[in-house]
Parts: sequence; structure tokens; C-alpha cells
Amino acid sequence: MEKKIFETEIKVRDYECDAQGIVNNANYQHYYEITRHEFLESIGISFSDSHDEGIDPVVSRIEIFYKAPLKGGDRIISSMTVKRKGARIIFNQTIKRKSDNTLCSTATVDVVILINGVLSIGDRYDEAMKEYLE
Amino acid sequence: MEKKIFETEIKVRDYECDAQGIVNNANYQHYYEITRHEFLESIGISFSDSHDEGIDPVVSRIEIFYKAPLKGGDRIISSMTVKRKGARIIFNQTIKRKSDNTLCSTATVDVVILINGVLSIGDRYDEAMKEYLE
Amino acid sequence: MEKKIFETEIKVRDYECDAQGIVNNANYQHYYEITRHEFLESIGISFSDSHDEGIDPVVSRIEIFYKAPLKGGDRIISSMTVKRKGARIIFNQTIKRKSDNTLCSTATVDVVILINGVLSIGDRYDEAMKEYLE
Amino acid sequence: MEKKIFETEIKVRDYECDAQGIVNNANYQHYYEITRHEFLESIGISFSDSHDEGIDPVVSRIEIFYKAPLKGGDRIISSMTVKRKGARIIFNQTIKRKSDNTLCSTATVDVVILINGVLSIGDRYDEAMKEYLE
Repeated sequence: MEKKIFETEIKVRDYECDAQGIVNNANYQHYYEITRHEFLESIGISFSDSHDEGIDPVVSRIEIFYKAPLKGGDRIISSMTVKRKGARIIFNQTIKRKSDNTLCSTATVDVVILINGVLSIGDRYDEAMKEYLE
Repeated sequence: MEKKIFETEIKVRDYECDAQGIVNNANYQHYYEITRHEFLESIGISFSDSHDEGIDPVVSRIEIFYKAPLKGGDRIISSMTVKRKGARIIFNQTIKRKSDNTLCSTATVDVVILINGVLSIGDRYDEAMKEYLE
Repeated sequence: MEKKIFETEIKVRDYECDAQGIVNNANYQHYYEITRHEFLESIGISFSDSHDEGIDPVVSRIEIFYKAPLKGGDRIISSMTVKRKGARIIFNQTIKRKSDNTLCSTATVDVVILINGVLSIGDRYDEAMKEYLE
Repeated sequence: MEKKIFETEIKVRDYECDAQGIVNNANYQHYYEITRHEFLESIGISFSDSHDEGIDPVVSRIEIFYKAPLKGGDRIISSMTVKRKGARIIFNQTIKRKSDNTLCSTATVDVVILINGVLSIGDRYDEAMKEYLE
């Protein structure tokens, strides 16, 4: 059975490119973060409200592959699936250029949940993410 | 009588340049902010501790002139003086390229002090800034 | 007669907030830049293609007023009008929070056109901007 | 035999923190990039000159572990070693908080060399990096 996919569209901003004329590597991490936060919002979890309640999802590990460059004005489709592995929530993410469907980058992101700064069992979001975890 | 000048050296980071190959305009605002925070630290005020105590200096207005571009690896000398005008603390700031003393940018920055989110009379830092306000 | 207004919607990204929990000042400059580039694109001018042809619009002065803070997830309406003043193209820009129409920031941005690094008379874009300059 | 280590000191800038009050994940990638570029400069290779000559080192993969958070004003010691693996140059990097030597993050970064946009055999920098590759 296929995992349920969340996706969002992002347009590359000119200032996100560096002197090489292509999107700077660190900005992919922003795109990946935006996508996870949009996902959370889509299932009813606000990142900033969570923080105010003392619940902070924190990235413990990220692995990014860079496959094709992006330029200012490019539209990208950023997709993700999510699964559980013990206390970790694992996001598999991809970025494709919209115009020609080129795979530009993939990433695996491990997230843990801190409650008031303490590592939690991590099931805090499971109910909300149910449809995606199956 | 001359105002006392605070200055700090900053090295341009390659990722701060955009596709034009020069430092993106918004990053000058970062350089100006870094300089003010270094200044506050030099007179014993920590920006993050202040925030934890409910005291937030907030920029109400900034005017920046861009005169000459900066490139990756350039070293800059960022200088400032400070004065009071009613509830506002006004910073006059300049950025010069170190190698040839070229004036690259000037700025005027108006800051007000919020205490627990409320505009304060703004004399909170006057004792600490005494030497510079004279 | 009223100037023609260009506007675009932007959603605040969580990473654009700083430790004060609100959008960092420098990011407003990004929002203003995004808006101008979207405007240029809407009238058929690509910022990155322009650069490849040796034509670079460059900000010579920016003045920003900060009136009300923005938080992660806020949607903003970013509006602008444009006029000419000699060699300068002057953008009057505003940022309003969409949910309650609060005016969060205003800016005046002076842009000059460099052709192969040399200040041009600046009429390069006038035909394309015709509708907005009237 | 121990690899030769390059290290540089970086001070966390307040704007690099996000609403969680700690350095945003993407900024670690900036710290790691700054360190590699400082390293290149220390062995006589300028990142921006390289680009002008058509030689672009490009990150093909990055893996980052986040172990302890950083706050505004923290000083960090960013260290790296470098080795070759076929066409790839592999950087092993760490970030430690200076005040108490806490290991905050580690990273492995695979870089390939493009010459005029084409993947090169990648030995372009070997002579310059000789001391570090042994």
C-alpha cells in the first residue's frame, strides 16, 4: 500500500540564489522545513502555537542529496511522506522542478519531539498524522 | 566635540551574495544589526538576556543608502554612533570596505524600547550608553 | 488620478522569525524585493534574464517604517506603486496583515538601472511599466 | 596517523536564531559552508575567483546531526578534515560550543568539482589540499 503524500508548491526567490547563480544549498533546508510546517498546519498543528505550549519538534538528523540546480523564479513541487521509528518521526522529502518534473533534491529528516525541553516518547502528533502514518 | 564611535569588523560570507554576484541588500541590514548588538554587548547588554527579561529594543525606522557593492570575502569596517531623540535611540551607521576604505553604505536606524510589549520612555539603556551619548 | 497598484500575497515562514518570536527586520526587505520582482515578472521582465543581458536594477536607497510585528504563518498583502524621478525609479510599498488589514510596514525604495555596470538614463523599463507610471 | 585539522571560530548572530530561541537548522549549513570556504582561502583558493574561472565546487550530499542547540552570542569552534573518494571530496566537520566544548553538531559533506558546468575528475584542488589529504 502506498503512503499518503503531502505536497506544496514553492517559488524560488531571487535572493535565495548565491553568486553561483543557483539556489544556495542551505535554502533547500528552508524549503524542506516550510513543507513540514505546511504539512503540520494542514493536519491542524501550528508550529508557533506548539512552541508556546512547550512542544517543540526538533530535527536530530538531516541527509540531503543535491541532484540538479534551481534558479530564481523556478517553481518547485515539494513532496513528503512520514513514518515512525521509535521516538523518531521520519520525513522522506523530495523537491522537483515543476516545469519539467526534474528531481532536484531528496532528503531524509529525523525529528524528535521535546516537551518543555525533554525528549518525549514522541506520540504527541500521532493522532493528527494518522492518515499519513498508515 | 566628536561623538564616540563604536566599530567592528565583519567578513562578507559567500552565501550573502545573490545572483548579481554582490551582497544582497537585505544583508546590509544584518550587518547593521550585528554591529548594534556587538555595541550593546560591549557595554554589558546582552540582546538575548534582555529579551528574556521582557526588554526588547525594536527598530521603528531604517534608512539605508547603498553606494558601492560588496563581494564575497570582502572585509568591512562597520561603525556607529548613537544619540537620543525623545523616546527614540538613533544610530548613525556606516559600512566601509577595509581594503581601500571605500564607503559602501550608510544608515540611520531609529530604535524604541518595548518593556513587556509596551513602549517605554526609553531611558533603560542610557546609563550603559553614557559614554556614547555625550 | 490614482496610481495603478500591484499586489501579491506572501505567507510568513517560521524561520523568518528571530528569537523575539517575530519576523526579523531584514526579512521585510526580502518581502519588498520579492514584490518588486513579482511586479517585474508580471510586466514581462525576468530579474535573472535581465542580469544575464547585463541589465541590473540596483537599490540605491531604502527607507522602511516598522509599525506592527508579524508572526510565523501570518499572511501578508504586499502592495506597491511606482514612479519616475530623473534616473531613479521609486517604489512606494506597503505590507498589511491579511487577517485584519493592519498596516505593518511601509517603504520607499529608490532603484537605478545599471547596464554592464554603468548607470543608465534608466528609461530601460519605461515601456514595460507604462500602465503603472501614468 | 592523524588527519590535519582546519578550524575556525564563528560567533552566532542573533538573527540566526528562530522563534524557538535557538539557531535554526539551516544556519548550521551556513556555518559548515563558511568553514569550507575559509579552509579553501587558507590554502590559496578563492571561492568567488574560482567561479569566475568556471570552476565550481558543488555539494552533492550533506548529512548533519544536531546534538545540542546554540543560542545568540555563542562562540563556536568549527573544525574539518578532508579526504578523497573517487571524484568526490569528502569533508568531515564538527561544531563545538567554545565555552564548554559541547559537541553541538557533526556533518559529512560530499563535494564534486564542476568545470564549466561539467563534472570533472575532481583533482583540481589536490595539489593545494595536499597537506590535508595525506
